Amino acid sequence: MAPASFTARFHQSVTPNSLRAYLAEFISTFFYVFAVVGSAMASRKLMSDSATDPSSLVLVAIANTFALSSSVYIAANVSGGHVNPAVTFGLAVGGHISVTTALFYWVSQMLASVMACLFLKVTTVSQHVPTYTIANEMTGFGASMLEGVLVFALVYTVYAAGDPRTGPLGTIGPLVIGLMAGAMVLAAGPFSGGSMNPALAFGSAVIAGRLKNQAVYWVGPLIGAGVAGLLYDNVVFAGQASGRGNSEGTGV
Amino acid sequence: MAPASFTARFHQSVTPNSLRAYLAEFISTFFYVFAVVGSAMASRKLMSDSATDPSSLVLVAIANTFALSSSVYIAANVSGGHVNPAVTFGLAVGGHISVTTALFYWVSQMLASVMACLFLKVTTVSQHVPTYTIANEMTGFGASMLEGVLVFALVYTVYAAGDPRTGPLGTIGPLVIGLMAGAMVLAAGPFSGGSMNPALAFGSAVIAGRLKNQAVYWVGPLIGAGVAGLLYDNVVFAGQASGRGNSEGTGV
Amino acid sequence: MAPASFTARFHQSVTPNSLRAYLAEFISTFFYVFAVVGSAMASRKLMSDSATDPSSLVLVAIANTFALSSSVYIAANVSGGHVNPAVTFGLAVGGHISVTTALFYWVSQMLASVMACLFLKVTTVSQHVPTYTIANEMTGFGASMLEGVLVFALVYTVYAAGDPRTGPLGTIGPLVIGLMAGAMVLAAGPFSGGSMNPALAFGSAVIAGRLKNQAVYWVGPLIGAGVAGLLYDNVVFAGQASGRGNSEGTGV
Amino acid sequence: MAPASFTARFHQSVTPNSLRAYLAEFISTFFYVFAVVGSAMASRKLMSDSATDPSSLVLVAIANTFALSSSVYIAANVSGGHVNPAVTFGLAVGGHISVTTALFYWVSQMLASVMACLFLKVTTVSQHVPTYTIANEMTGFGASMLEGVLVFALVYTVYAAGDPRTGPLGTIGPLVIGLMAGAMVLAAGPFSGGSMNPALAFGSAVIAGRLKNQAVYWVGPLIGAGVAGLLYDNVVFAGQASGRGNSEGTGV
Repeated sequence: MAPASFTARFHQSVTPNSLRAYLAEFISTFFYVFAVVGSAMASRKLMSDSATDPSSLVLVAIANTFALSSSVYIAANVSGGHVNPAVTFGLAVGGHISVTTALFYWVSQMLASVMACLFLKVTTVSQHVPTYTIANEMTGFGASMLEGVLVFALVYTVYAAGDPRTGPLGTIGPLVIGLMAGAMVLAAGPFSGGSMNPALAFGSAVIAGRLKNQAVYWVGPLIGAGVAGLLYDNVVFAGQASGRGNSEGTGV
Repeated sequence: MAPASFTARFHQSVTPNSLRAYLAEFISTFFYVFAVVGSAMASRKLMSDSATDPSSLVLVAIANTFALSSSVYIAANVSGGHVNPAVTFGLAVGGHISVTTALFYWVSQMLASVMACLFLKVTTVSQHVPTYTIANEMTGFGASMLEGVLVFALVYTVYAAGDPRTGPLGTIGPLVIGLMAGAMVLAAGPFSGGSMNPALAFGSAVIAGRLKNQAVYWVGPLIGAGVAGLLYDNVVFAGQASGRGNSEGTGV
Repeated sequence: MAPASFTARFHQSVTPNSLRAYLAEFISTFFYVFAVVGSAMASRKLMSDSATDPSSLVLVAIANTFALSSSVYIAANVSGGHVNPAVTFGLAVGGHISVTTALFYWVSQMLASVMACLFLKVTTVSQHVPTYTIANEMTGFGASMLEGVLVFALVYTVYAAGDPRTGPLGTIGPLVIGLMAGAMVLAAGPFSGGSMNPALAFGSAVIAGRLKNQAVYWVGPLIGAGVAGLLYDNVVFAGQASGRGNSEGTGV
Repeated sequence: MAPASFTARFHQSVTPNSLRAYLAEFISTFFYVFAVVGSAMASRKLMSDSATDPSSLVLVAIANTFALSSSVYIAANVSGGHVNPAVTFGLAVGGHISVTTALFYWVSQMLASVMACLFLKVTTVSQHVPTYTIANEMTGFGASMLEGVLVFALVYTVYAAGDPRTGPLGTIGPLVIGLMAGAMVLAAGPFSGGSMNPALAFGSAVIAGRLKNQAVYWVGPLIGAGVAGLLYDNVVFAGQASGRGNSEGTGV
């Protein structure tokens, strides 16, 4: 691919197809954040006291799996179904999406997350929007490393699911992405929160007015996403290019 | 397709193929309502007091996902597997099913829902059929908006799953429709009830003799379904027609 | 197919291919019963008192879905993956399997169920093997009707999953069969027990030495299975033959 | 294939393709062990007292299913996606992978398990890494038999999922493998622990410094795996070779 000036790249990023891709990312991320944050709110409302228990974690993890699989699915043919700034970053690192397109994806995803949380806060009237927090005994560094590993697993799975060499297994790709996300939430939920998605952590924090610990949900995840992309393309599955959303410039 | 008079359209809606489609909708909706309302009854019977907890919500949401995926699947080739008057409405708005056929679908779905609830009430003897209710602090308007968003997500997913452009991903369409429904129930269950299906809310209300709040489960959902259909066909995936049950007049 | 004498049919039922099919049914039913009865035993062991709660029902229903989907899958290409005498009966009524083959299937399934329960009883040492029971307030007739509807849903789904007209949707058939079973357990578990499988009810009852209520788990289910088969083939999907395990005489 | 000397076989086992397969096994096993052990740690953290309950078992079993399906998926095209020394053993017994390659797989899987547990211990700071244990009333022999049956079911499913004769059903193979594993955990969790994976039991035991009962998680499982492989290839599905990871010498 020949290098392109920033202006040319920008123009490639505002074609009708690109705008459709941004809208698809917005819709999918809205549904995903709505389900994940909503399920956490539902879980809090149902528990008599402020404690949490294994069934709350099951509830949120299943919401995560169900919502991510379906949100990825409905956007797969238009935007690639990232639904997550870290996934977009991981694919940009691997060269499967241009930097300018990635930035537009980020804006769509962040905006969708903030609006989903706002909508939940308004319609449920008196409910508190929960934010991602880390366990008391953990350090911010440890939590960010943990989130980084979760995102590594997620982005690696996105790469595998979008790899044309998987053949017919590609059919169940969106399901498998959701399953990996749910498994990671079950493992890390009570420790680092199990966000795996900077937009998710950001949107709920903005609406709750509590931006503490945001670095935990950005630094580790972006590093994990980048490493996953490089490792997948260059080491484990070296050879031909692969990945979702890989048409440079259109985001399709 | 040339415009047809009402009589011609009506005749198209009572062919043997159409009657099979109505029967398929009846059977699928019966199974779906049976599982969802039955699981809510089972959950109430198992809790020692009248309280509810996260595992009850998990129970009902999983029943919803499992039952909707399988009910859509078994009717997919005959009626398109709507199993929901709001889905039928959303597809009619997009022009994928005629208005008269949609009306027959509605009658089948409503009748199936009432009969499933009646069957549950009779066989379980002393059990109370639960109805959909909204949280005390919520307004009817807010609850209907919330239900509208749930249905928007569901109908948008139905459109994506039935879109021939999804290629091999179409194979997992019925699974994804169920997953989206379950995710939405997990998010909204304790707030607006998480019906997403006017027939479900109607059938349980008729048998329980408690028709309060029905507007919540009709107005928002039908608006959400219509908007989803228009947005999918005209904006996000503009171009060729798509959607389940798209042979005009036959409902197949 | 020309009519065959009983002897000829019997000979068709003891070919090497048929024996493989019986062994496949035995293995799959053993796994399925092991998982369902084992999960009920696990649930009892984990609850501090003898009470039951929504998470116990979720546990058993998920075990049912996971085990049935995988058990059907591993036998699909050899025996059709019935894993259930009622399913075998429903397919025999529709003419998709000969009566003698069906009888051999039944023997394999019953034997597998008894052995799975015996194995669980022996290895877990002091545990009690639970049997299917109906809620106190229910009549045996009502419970059998309820079980009949569950089996109707299950056999109808088996017919749809095995119908070649489903095209690529056939790929997810085994998953959908498990999902329908799980949904039905969630709805009916605390009322009629949610067996849906005469072999399951029989095996656990034999090992527990408590054969009360067996009629509930045989009469309704067999009627439901037969009606489902006739309705699917002759009304809803009239036309070409369909169904799993449809090579007459070989059970393949 | 002509017999090869140990040196030749060894050389076949250190080609670039083989090294990629070992890395893929390492990554998948790391994710799987991370999710399963992490979910057990999460469950312990969430319970107010040291007791366990049905929702804890649901949590761990779902983590197992979600993580195994996705871990098998992401390695399927490179290493066959064993993620389990018992599966590797079962495929080696059936001749689908050479003994030297199997040994390298084992080393990758064991190392990944130890590192995943170490990572969890370090990042969660004060948490205890749980080990697999058997119920008080059970004998080690009974527990090992129980684990052997679990692994038999798992390896049999792996054989079926990798059998080219399954045709389009092969698409959902990784999902079904996870479902079978989850069903088995639900049945045997409170009795034998439900490891089904010697690497899982080994890694957590090494980090917890508690190697008691390891024989339970090796002897039964390896016997179960071997029997499953022989039975599948030679009896139930006699005929052509089958199975994942069946290119001799490359592990691909």
